[in-house]
Amino acid sequence: MSSTWGNNIKISVFGESHGAAIGVVLDGLPSGEDVDLNFINDKMFKRSSKINSLSTPRKEDDKPVILSGIKDGKTEGTPVAIMIENVNTKSKDYDNISTLMRPSHADYTANIRYAGFQDVRGGGHFSGRLTAPLVAAGAICEYILQNRGIYIASHVKNIHGVSDDVFPINYNKENALKLKQKTLQVLNDEKGKKMLDEIEKARDNADSVGGIIETCVINMPVGIGSPMFNGIENKLSSIIFGVPAVKGIEFGLGFGFANAYASECNDAFYYDENKKVKTKINNNGGINGGITNGMNVNFSVVIKPTPSIFKAQETIDIKSGENAVIKIQGRHDPCIVIRAVPVIESVTAIAIFDCLTER
Amino acid sequence: MSSTWGNNIKISVFGESHGAAIGVVLDGLPSGEDVDLNFINDKMFKRSSKINSLSTPRKEDDKPVILSGIKDGKTEGTPVAIMIENVNTKSKDYDNISTLMRPSHADYTANIRYAGFQDVRGGGHFSGRLTAPLVAAGAICEYILQNRGIYIASHVKNIHGVSDDVFPINYNKENALKLKQKTLQVLNDEKGKKMLDEIEKARDNADSVGGIIETCVINMPVGIGSPMFNGIENKLSSIIFGVPAVKGIEFGLGFGFANAYASECNDAFYYDENKKVKTKINNNGGINGGITNGMNVNFSVVIKPTPSIFKAQETIDIKSGENAVIKIQGRHDPCIVIRAVPVIESVTAIAIFDCLTER
Amino acid sequence: MSSTWGNNIKISVFGESHGAAIGVVLDGLPSGEDVDLNFINDKMFKRSSKINSLSTPRKEDDKPVILSGIKDGKTEGTPVAIMIENVNTKSKDYDNISTLMRPSHADYTANIRYAGFQDVRGGGHFSGRLTAPLVAAGAICEYILQNRGIYIASHVKNIHGVSDDVFPINYNKENALKLKQKTLQVLNDEKGKKMLDEIEKARDNADSVGGIIETCVINMPVGIGSPMFNGIENKLSSIIFGVPAVKGIEFGLGFGFANAYASECNDAFYYDENKKVKTKINNNGGINGGITNGMNVNFSVVIKPTPSIFKAQETIDIKSGENAVIKIQGRHDPCIVIRAVPVIESVTAIAIFDCLTER
Amino acid sequence: MSSTWGNNIKISVFGESHGAAIGVVLDGLPSGEDVDLNFINDKMFKRSSKINSLSTPRKEDDKPVILSGIKDGKTEGTPVAIMIENVNTKSKDYDNISTLMRPSHADYTANIRYAGFQDVRGGGHFSGRLTAPLVAAGAICEYILQNRGIYIASHVKNIHGVSDDVFPINYNKENALKLKQKTLQVLNDEKGKKMLDEIEKARDNADSVGGIIETCVINMPVGIGSPMFNGIENKLSSIIFGVPAVKGIEFGLGFGFANAYASECNDAFYYDENKKVKTKINNNGGINGGITNGMNVNFSVVIKPTPSIFKAQETIDIKSGENAVIKIQGRHDPCIVIRAVPVIESVTAIAIFDCLTER
Repeated sequence: MSSTWGNNIKISVFGESHGAAIGVVLDGLPSGEDVDLNFINDKMFKRSSKINSLSTPRKEDDKPVILSGIKDGKTEGTPVAIMIENVNTKSKDYDNISTLMRPSHADYTANIRYAGFQDVRGGGHFSGRLTAPLVAAGAICEYILQNRGIYIASHVKNIHGVSDDVFPINYNKENALKLKQKTLQVLNDEKGKKMLDEIEKARDNADSVGGIIETCVINMPVGIGSPMFNGIENKLSSIIFGVPAVKGIEFGLGFGFANAYASECNDAFYYDENKKVKTKINNNGGINGGITNGMNVNFSVVIKPTPSIFKAQETIDIKSGENAVIKIQGRHDPCIVIRAVPVIESVTAIAIFDCLTER
Repeated sequence: MSSTWGNNIKISVFGESHGAAIGVVLDGLPSGEDVDLNFINDKMFKRSSKINSLSTPRKEDDKPVILSGIKDGKTEGTPVAIMIENVNTKSKDYDNISTLMRPSHADYTANIRYAGFQDVRGGGHFSGRLTAPLVAAGAICEYILQNRGIYIASHVKNIHGVSDDVFPINYNKENALKLKQKTLQVLNDEKGKKMLDEIEKARDNADSVGGIIETCVINMPVGIGSPMFNGIENKLSSIIFGVPAVKGIEFGLGFGFANAYASECNDAFYYDENKKVKTKINNNGGINGGITNGMNVNFSVVIKPTPSIFKAQETIDIKSGENAVIKIQGRHDPCIVIRAVPVIESVTAIAIFDCLTER
Repeated sequence: MSSTWGNNIKISVFGESHGAAIGVVLDGLPSGEDVDLNFINDKMFKRSSKINSLSTPRKEDDKPVILSGIKDGKTEGTPVAIMIENVNTKSKDYDNISTLMRPSHADYTANIRYAGFQDVRGGGHFSGRLTAPLVAAGAICEYILQNRGIYIASHVKNIHGVSDDVFPINYNKENALKLKQKTLQVLNDEKGKKMLDEIEKARDNADSVGGIIETCVINMPVGIGSPMFNGIENKLSSIIFGVPAVKGIEFGLGFGFANAYASECNDAFYYDENKKVKTKINNNGGINGGITNGMNVNFSVVIKPTPSIFKAQETIDIKSGENAVIKIQGRHDPCIVIRAVPVIESVTAIAIFDCLTER
Repeated sequence: MSSTWGNNIKISVFGESHGAAIGVVLDGLPSGEDVDLNFINDKMFKRSSKINSLSTPRKEDDKPVILSGIKDGKTEGTPVAIMIENVNTKSKDYDNISTLMRPSHADYTANIRYAGFQDVRGGGHFSGRLTAPLVAAGAICEYILQNRGIYIASHVKNIHGVSDDVFPINYNKENALKLKQKTLQVLNDEKGKKMLDEIEKARDNADSVGGIIETCVINMPVGIGSPMFNGIENKLSSIIFGVPAVKGIEFGLGFGFANAYASECNDAFYYDENKKVKTKINNNGGINGGITNGMNVNFSVVIKPTPSIFKAQETIDIKSGENAVIKIQGRHDPCIVIRAVPVIESVTAIAIFDCLTER
C-alpha cells in the first residue's frame, strides 16, 4: 500500500500517466468546510504545462471531476473522490523506448518491483502527472487552512545556482497572498528573470536543471505535532518524498547547522510587546522537538533536474540485455521546479491539516 | 500516538530521561533470528558518553534488559521488549531551570503541547537519552540484516566545516566493517582529528557544534520500496526525524542537484562484466522512484549543535512571564554528532528491515 | 478516515448513493495477477437487485469502470481504482423524508456526526449501495485467491428462523463452486424455498426480515494470522462490520460455546492418513490464537432486517423538533440477506488476502 | 506487528507467560489526566486468580510497575509503559507437554507460525496472562472515561446455559457502580449462585465451561464513530478478539435479529420530556451506521470453555509425528468467564477512548 498516506486525513492516489484516469480519495475531512472550485482550478493551472512557455508543450486539460464528498460547495465529511481523465496522451512517442531504461528515472526499478507488469507509458504510476491529484486534494486542504487563518507559501529559492531572496522572519499573510498571485513565485523578480535565463539555457542545450523550493507556513498555532515519529518534520517529509524528483528536505537552517555554533544559531525566546512568545531568529523552522513553537514553519526541498533530456545518454536495454544509448523523444521540461511549487504547497497543506486534526 | 512507528516492523518507544526507565517494544520480527547481546552492547557503548572524553561526563550504565521476545539467543517472533533503567540521574542539576525555556530545545513546545504536565527533568521524553532504546532495537535489526548480507555504515561527514572524505561508489562490506570498528567513524582519520579539534575548541568556548552524518547501506537488494509514500526516502525520513537534533536529510547528491545539469548528474545504467545492472555514478543514492536500484543506498543527515551550552543565553521565564537570561548547568556535550552515528545506523536498520519485510 | 481499511492490502471506499459516482481504490495488490472481468461482473450481478424478484426494483446498471492498475487483464501492482457511476437515481422519492429520521437507519447519527452537511438522499455514504465497490474490489481478490487454490463460499444459514443445513467439516472446492453457481446460495434447496416464503410473507406485510450468513474459507494454509490484535478474527470482523446491517459475528461454534463443556467442544488434533494435521471437529472455525490451523475457516454474521419498511413507524422530525410518524416511500427490500452473500464473500476475500500477504 | 493496536490511543503489548516480564506501552493519552493506582490495582485483582476460589490456584502477585508517562498521579501525555514481572512461574509443570499440542489451544498454530522458536511455557505470548497488561492499560482509560462521566459495566450474562437478567434500557451510572463493586458481576445474584454451581460441577468433572459477557457503556455521547471501517463495532471487535478465548461478538439484539421483523425490532426514535433524542427499545446497541446514537452502547461476547482440562484428550505429538493422548497437568480454571469480565471492561475502555479522541 504505497500510494496511501495519512493518519486523520488520508489520501489514496491512483492512476497511470496514460491510463484511463488518475485521481485521489481524500478521507477524513470535517464536514461543512467550504470548497472553492476556482481555488482548486487555479492551483491545477499553476501545476500545468500552460503556466509558462518553458514547460512541456503537452496540452493538458486537467479538469478535476469531483465524484463524491462535496455537496453545495461544502464538504460532507465523507470521502472526497476526485478523478482527472487522461486525454490527449501521445503514447506513440514512448513506443520505441520501452526497453531502454531512462537514466535516473524509475523505469528500471519499477520493472523489477512489478516484474514488468507495470504500465511504462509516460512513466505510468511514477509519472509527474500523478502530482495533479495531489494538487487537487491539497488545494481543498489549503483552502480550509486559509479559512482558519493559516497560509502556505512557497517560492523558488534556487535554480541552478541562481538564488532568490529568503523569507524574512516576519513573513505574513499579506506577503504570502501577494507571492501566490505571481506566475513565477519568487520574492525577488529580478532573480526570477535570471532563473528563467538558466532554464532557457538548459533547454537550448537539450538539458535540464533542478532547484530548491522553500516553503513558509504562516500563523501556525503553537503546540502542534508530537515528539519522536509524529513530529511536523516526520509528517512533512513522509509525504513530500512522495513528490517525484524530491531528493532532500531541510528545516530552518537545515544543513547550515553543520557550520554553526550553538551560540550563533540557537533561537532565543522572548516575549514581544503583546506578551506573545517569539524567537529572535528562526533557525529551527518553527519546530522544536517535532512541535510547532508559534513561529512560521519553514523548510526547503531540493528538486533534481528532470532526468528526461534530449541529449543522448548511456543506459541498458533490458530486452537485449546489452548496454545501449537512449535519446528520449516526446515532451519534457527543461525545469520542473516552477511547476512543482503548487505541488509542494499542496502536499504541505495536506500534512499540516493532518497534524492540526490530530488533537 | 507519537512514539510509535512502523508498518511491518513496529517500534513503540517510552520513557523520560529521569523517570524509572526508558525502553522500546519491537513488534513484527520474524522468529528464529539470531540475537547477539554483544553486538547490542557494543552499539550501546558507542552511543554512550564513555565513547570519548569529549562527551557528557554522566556515567551512564545503560544496560538493556530484554523482557520478552528473545529465547536462547533467538527471536521468538513475538514482541521484543527492552528496558533500560535510569540510574545515577542528577535531577538537582535541573531544579533551577524548570521555568526558563532553553533556547532551541523542546522545553517550551512540550510545555504547550502537554500543558505543563510533562516531566521536564533532563528533557523528559524529548531527551537525547531516548535514543538508547532506538539503538537497542536497531542493533537487533542491524544484526539480522548483516546475517542476510546487508551492511549499514555511517561516518561523520562534517563537523563545523571540517569534511571527511566521501563514500566511494563501490564501498563494500569489508570497508564498512573496518569503519565500524573505529571509535570515531571517519573515512579519513586525519580529518577526524581536525574534527576533534573543532569540538575541543567549542568546548573551550562553552559552546557546541553540529555536523553531518552520511550513511551507506551496502548490498541492498534491487526492487525494494514502493512509489509515492512508501518509498525508501519516505520511510527513512519518517523515522530519522525522530532522532533529536536532526534538521535535514538528503539522498545521494541531495541539495547538490540544485546546481547540476541532468546531463552531468543523471546516473547512467550499464551492465557490468557479470551482467549485473549498475550505474556509473550514484547521485540518486541508490533509489529511483522510491525503489532501490541495486546500488548502495546513500543519504546524509544534519545534526544541529547541541542547544545546551554553558554560555548565557536570552530566553523567557514562563513563571514570571518575563524575558530572562539562562545559564544552563549540568552535563552537556560540545558535540553529539559522534554519539549520533550509531543512532543513525540503528534507525536506518529498523527502516530498512521494515522495507525488506514488506513483500 | 473511516472508509479506508487495511494493512498490506488497502481499500479506500468513496461515494454517496445519489452522488456522481461510487467506487474504491485498492492498493497493495501484487503485479501480474490475472483479473477476470466476467468474474467481477457476475459477482456484481449477484449483489444487484436483479438477482431475484424479491429485491428492490431499482434498475441498477452497476458497471464497474476500471480507472487504473490493470493492464491487459493483469494487475500492474499499482493502485486499482474502480468507479461505478450512479444512474437512474430517483432522488425525488426521498425528498419528503429528509427531516424524518428513519428508525434503525443512520439518518440521525449521520446528521449529528456531520452536522447536517451529509448527503441524505438514499442514505448517502451509509447506503447499502456502497457495498457495490466492496464487491468489485473483493472479486479481484477472490479471483486471485482462487488461482492460489483458496475458495470462499457463503450460504444463507438462516432467514427469520428457517435454517439451512450446515457446512460439513470436509467442505471442499467442488462443493463451494457448486454452491456459488446457485442464485440462492443455500446448501439445502428445500430450505431455501422456505426462506423465500418467509421473505414473501414479510413483503406482503410491508415488513422485512433478517438472517444469518455463514462463510467457509477452503484450503486456507496453516499458520496465517498473528496473536492478539492481528488475528484472523480481528481482521475479518474489522472489515465485516463495515457492511451495513451486520450486527454480530461468531467464529466456529461461536455463541454455542456458552453452553458447552470443553470436553465436548475442544477440537482434538490428529494426523490423517497423509500425516496432515487435522481436527476431528472444527468448533474453533479453523483458528487458534488468531492463527489458522489448516482446517476451513468458518464464521457466521447476522444481518438485521432492512430497517426501511412501508409500515408506519414512530420517529422524530429534526426540523420541527417534535415526535412524528414516518411512512418510508421509495424502493426497499423485504430482505437483503441474499444480496449480502456476495458482499460477505467479497470482504472476506479482501481480509484473507491481506492476511496472506502479511508474510 | 500483531500485538500493537489503535489509532489515536495505541497499545503495544509484550511478554510471555513464563518470561521475564509482561507489559504494555500505551501511547496517545492526553496530558493532565488523573491516574488512580488503587483503581488499577482493584481491576487487576478482579482479573487475578484470587478473585474467587474457583480460579487457578497460581498465586500471582501482579504488581503493575509504571515505568513512564505518569508523574504526580497524572498523565504526562507521553507514552505510559507498564511492566508486570513474572514471578512464581512453575515451568516444570509444562515440561512434559511441550510436544503434545493442547486441543483448542494455540500450541500448534504458534508452532507453525513461529517455526518452533516461540516460548511454549504456559502458552507464551498466547497465554491468558497477557490480559493483565490489557487490564492495567484499560483501567487507566476507564478511569479517565469515568471522570468524563462515561461508565463501562460488564456482567456475566450466561455460564453454561444459566442466564443472568439483562441490562434494562435505562441502565445508569449508579447501577453500574453497584454492579462493579460485586465480586461476581451479575445483575441477579441468585442466578450468579447457579452459575457458580455450574462451574463447580465442571471442576468436579475435570472439565470447564464457557459463557457470555455483556457490556454496557453508559452516557456515551451521540455522534461518536464513523461509517464503514471506523465504526464503534469495527473498533470494539478489532480489540476484543485480541482477548484469548473470545469467539464471537454481537451488538444489541445481535443474532436475535435473524428471527425478528423490522416492525418489531426497529428502534423507534422519540424526544423525551427534556427534548433529548432517545429510542424506545435499543436493539441496535446504541449504534447506527457505526456511530453512537446517544443510547447506551451494548454488546455481548462469548468466551469459550478453557481448553485446558484435566480429562484425557486425543491430540498429536509433533515430536514423534504420531497421534497421542494428552492429560494436561498444572493450573487451570474450570471457567475463565468471571475473570474475563474486567478484561472486557478494560479493552472496551481503550477502544471507546480511542473513538472519543478521534475528533
